Amino acid sequence: MKNLKLVKSEDSARKSTIKVGNCEIGKDFIIIAGPCSVESEEQTMLTAEAVKQGNGNMLRGGAFKPRTSPYDFQGLGLKGLKILEKAKLKTGLPIVTEVIDPRDVSWVCEYADILQIGARNMQNFSLLKEVGKSKKPVLLKRGMYSTLREWLNCAEYILAEGNPDVILCERGIRTFETYTRNTLDLSIVPAIKELTHLPVMVDPSHGTGKLSLIEPMSLAAVAAGADGLLLEVHINPKEALSDADQQLTPEQFVNLTAKVLKLKKFMDESIYPLDGLEG
Amino acid sequence: MKNLKLVKSEDSARKSTIKVGNCEIGKDFIIIAGPCSVESEEQTMLTAEAVKQGNGNMLRGGAFKPRTSPYDFQGLGLKGLKILEKAKLKTGLPIVTEVIDPRDVSWVCEYADILQIGARNMQNFSLLKEVGKSKKPVLLKRGMYSTLREWLNCAEYILAEGNPDVILCERGIRTFETYTRNTLDLSIVPAIKELTHLPVMVDPSHGTGKLSLIEPMSLAAVAAGADGLLLEVHINPKEALSDADQQLTPEQFVNLTAKVLKLKKFMDESIYPLDGLEG
Amino acid sequence: MKNLKLVKSEDSARKSTIKVGNCEIGKDFIIIAGPCSVESEEQTMLTAEAVKQGNGNMLRGGAFKPRTSPYDFQGLGLKGLKILEKAKLKTGLPIVTEVIDPRDVSWVCEYADILQIGARNMQNFSLLKEVGKSKKPVLLKRGMYSTLREWLNCAEYILAEGNPDVILCERGIRTFETYTRNTLDLSIVPAIKELTHLPVMVDPSHGTGKLSLIEPMSLAAVAAGADGLLLEVHINPKEALSDADQQLTPEQFVNLTAKVLKLKKFMDESIYPLDGLEG
Amino acid sequence: MKNLKLVKSEDSARKSTIKVGNCEIGKDFIIIAGPCSVESEEQTMLTAEAVKQGNGNMLRGGAFKPRTSPYDFQGLGLKGLKILEKAKLKTGLPIVTEVIDPRDVSWVCEYADILQIGARNMQNFSLLKEVGKSKKPVLLKRGMYSTLREWLNCAEYILAEGNPDVILCERGIRTFETYTRNTLDLSIVPAIKELTHLPVMVDPSHGTGKLSLIEPMSLAAVAAGADGLLLEVHINPKEALSDADQQLTPEQFVNLTAKVLKLKKFMDESIYPLDGLEG
Repeated sequence: MKNLKLVKSEDSARKSTIKVGNCEIGKDFIIIAGPCSVESEEQTMLTAEAVKQGNGNMLRGGAFKPRTSPYDFQGLGLKGLKILEKAKLKTGLPIVTEVIDPRDVSWVCEYADILQIGARNMQNFSLLKEVGKSKKPVLLKRGMYSTLREWLNCAEYILAEGNPDVILCERGIRTFETYTRNTLDLSIVPAIKELTHLPVMVDPSHGTGKLSLIEPMSLAAVAAGADGLLLEVHINPKEALSDADQQLTPEQFVNLTAKVLKLKKFMDESIYPLDGLEG
Repeated sequence: MKNLKLVKSEDSARKSTIKVGNCEIGKDFIIIAGPCSVESEEQTMLTAEAVKQGNGNMLRGGAFKPRTSPYDFQGLGLKGLKILEKAKLKTGLPIVTEVIDPRDVSWVCEYADILQIGARNMQNFSLLKEVGKSKKPVLLKRGMYSTLREWLNCAEYILAEGNPDVILCERGIRTFETYTRNTLDLSIVPAIKELTHLPVMVDPSHGTGKLSLIEPMSLAAVAAGADGLLLEVHINPKEALSDADQQLTPEQFVNLTAKVLKLKKFMDESIYPLDGLEG
Repeated sequence: MKNLKLVKSEDSARKSTIKVGNCEIGKDFIIIAGPCSVESEEQTMLTAEAVKQGNGNMLRGGAFKPRTSPYDFQGLGLKGLKILEKAKLKTGLPIVTEVIDPRDVSWVCEYADILQIGARNMQNFSLLKEVGKSKKPVLLKRGMYSTLREWLNCAEYILAEGNPDVILCERGIRTFETYTRNTLDLSIVPAIKELTHLPVMVDPSHGTGKLSLIEPMSLAAVAAGADGLLLEVHINPKEALSDADQQLTPEQFVNLTAKVLKLKKFMDESIYPLDGLEG
Repeated sequence: MKNLKLVKSEDSARKSTIKVGNCEIGKDFIIIAGPCSVESEEQTMLTAEAVKQGNGNMLRGGAFKPRTSPYDFQGLGLKGLKILEKAKLKTGLPIVTEVIDPRDVSWVCEYADILQIGARNMQNFSLLKEVGKSKKPVLLKRGMYSTLREWLNCAEYILAEGNPDVILCERGIRTFETYTRNTLDLSIVPAIKELTHLPVMVDPSHGTGKLSLIEPMSLAAVAAGADGLLLEVHINPKEALSDADQQLTPEQFVNLTAKVLKLKKFMDESIYPLDGLEG
């Protein structure tokens, strides 16, 4: 893939790692969890504590929500960011939150530890350039129609502006299948590993849109070599203002992370005892 | 389709029209033509004159180019807009140009008669809201993976901000076919006509990406009921800085518009003598 | 496209024509119409007469129906073919009917003037070889996920067995769009014309699956250069055993063909007065 | 999903198992391996022994090859089946081989222990009915554009004819991604488990089309809950007459199965100690 000067790994052993709080993304296995949307202080604080208890490493939550209809809940904006800040103060969990407008990047950086670029904005090049100029790591989700080449070019946009800290996140692509919300493409994980030095995470919540499939796909993502998971957790999924069908309860989350971490440990110790993907 | 309060047409006979210069979009058949990118003053002025001679109604040209790779030509920016301004002064053709960043909307409005939202930004909701607050008509291209419902919701975003002047533009969707660059979905034209009161145009240049297919698909778009065409014209396509394979020469453009307008006249007089799509 | 020895046209002016009854497919514009399924003698005879009165050139009707579920109506089989035979005797219309099993080809040839291969069987190579050995023209529908290259290779299978009489038929491909049943890809029509010497028809009934879109897409198909149309007609669409939403009434059919033939005449006389697609 | 009377599992604990040789598919984890095509006796015998040594449970090999072009190698037919018979005699491995024509089903049953229906024939309903009348288990691959609902209906066709022994096999679907040959949809595995009582296997060779991705996707398939794997193995992949890019060498196969079986054991003992997918 030509023109991918900065994301490409000539030396397959070279892997970028990114320090956030006491995590080292690309080296440690990272679980980022939280509600789809920040809806209220109570909801966010309770979820944050559940995430912490369930071995989550970071808290995710949307203050700006890109929604298909203009009449759907658009997020709490600055108020939402302030709630996330409180949750961070209480739990110590770093904050991952989406930015959707280049005008917001500078002040969202005051609250976010990682800036998320959502699937619909993957090719919003103005936004990519702006987060490329910031000093915060960027979690770049794959567009729902995007090829690997297009996606890596979007990462290249960010690196070309001087920000080396990009984490890729597979979140499912659109296919003809309607049983799942999207089709989670796990083969992209080892493909990214062989082409680039960037860490890659997987979001089985958006990737399947179906509660019952989140656990098996989380485990599959670990086995495929993912560097971490994004999971939606809500204290009361039925009353969630968005994505009600795919948010785990705190109890489901704890059960899931226990299995995920057990499997990750096994993969590291017994399947790939020395190094990354080669055996 | 629920939630489409503003774009929906309860009365199928009600059709919005939009005045730009001496054209009435939605009533007159409109040909918008010009180069993919504004590359130089000479190229733009010569193309503008060719567009005028070839019965084009408006001049299109990109000053901001969303490109897959950060290392590809990104457009001339303000300099490009000033060139378009000169071309308008000389030919009288109104200017259609793309805006890709919400921070640019207010000053791009100084140069543009119609603001274009490109396929990759169809769901860039910050940008949609910003052009919704402007006073300029908006040409909203369909995203390359977008359903009709998603697209109409994006138009709804613009109308919900107070701007009633939205023109939809089909430019091909991504499919498995590789012979064409995209698959031009002409059935969307009558579908939009039966659901909404908005005008709808067709872009066979991006829709096919192949010079030889532009003429038959332009004629087919007319027969399907399109309100106009977007066509890429370049004085020297082989040296174009973008989309070299799909830009017509001035001579090809003149030949094409002659056929297109002849067919449009026939459709109006002989196939649908009294009104829109009913017979 | 390599390996397409027989379907390829080195000389773009060379076009194959196929004589069926008093029609010459590839030269005359052909309308093939009839019910999705042969359901009864009465339904078929009445429809056949309507097709004849509405300027249809051939009668289509399925005796073998490939259906998603095994519990859906599977067609009348031999009984259906005998009904089609009666309809042909009465109206003189040649019969186009689908064959789905290589074991049936020889005896279906006793009843059919043209053998149809449906979208789901496009790559049923055993069936393609068998119809390639028959003496009947073959109407080869495009698979719903098929690229042009794959489709033309399927035609090549038939020609390679010694049967030169293949008619291609675009019937819509599967995309993400749900408003229409399929996405009718009209750009394939001029693409086929520039690559091959084979005639190409369009099926807007399956291609859209929506009654209101059949007329505009039929007209668009004519403008794009199609050699004919396949249309579903039923004397009582609401009670049809299959495809109830996309079958025209006899009255709608008559109105549609009048417009289609008027447009076709105009295209031949005024847009392309001398020859095929070049101007 | 309505109309799926026979494949549906009302009681999620009820799982069908299928005895073939000394394997019990749906209970034991099954590895089916072998060359894409049977090319010669030597190639097949050597590969069969490698499969056996590498803990493969059954031998796969194509004697009838559905190929895009009529000029590509079409398989050895009966001669290929006789070679498979010899390989079975020598190694004791049951034979899995594709059938593509309903006329061949009865005599292919003399050689095959499991009949494979390939992706292109998933909706070849004549063929489905014929294998439904046979007494052999059927491995039904997913069509490359198929939804879960369509696929399960094809299994229903087979069960409705009286054959209860259907094994589903995910082999990747067509998407826009070009880095991989297909997109392997692992989420279909737990989806099938929750909807049906049928066993489901995964084919990472066709699913990725890329040697380097077969290992991580095989491991991911195990973690997602697959009942087994289909793997292409060739004694000299570079000289393979088909699918040269995705066939493992015997040595790669042995290394892979060791990891796969280690992981499967861990999943059974430590992640799901008592039962299927629930925890």
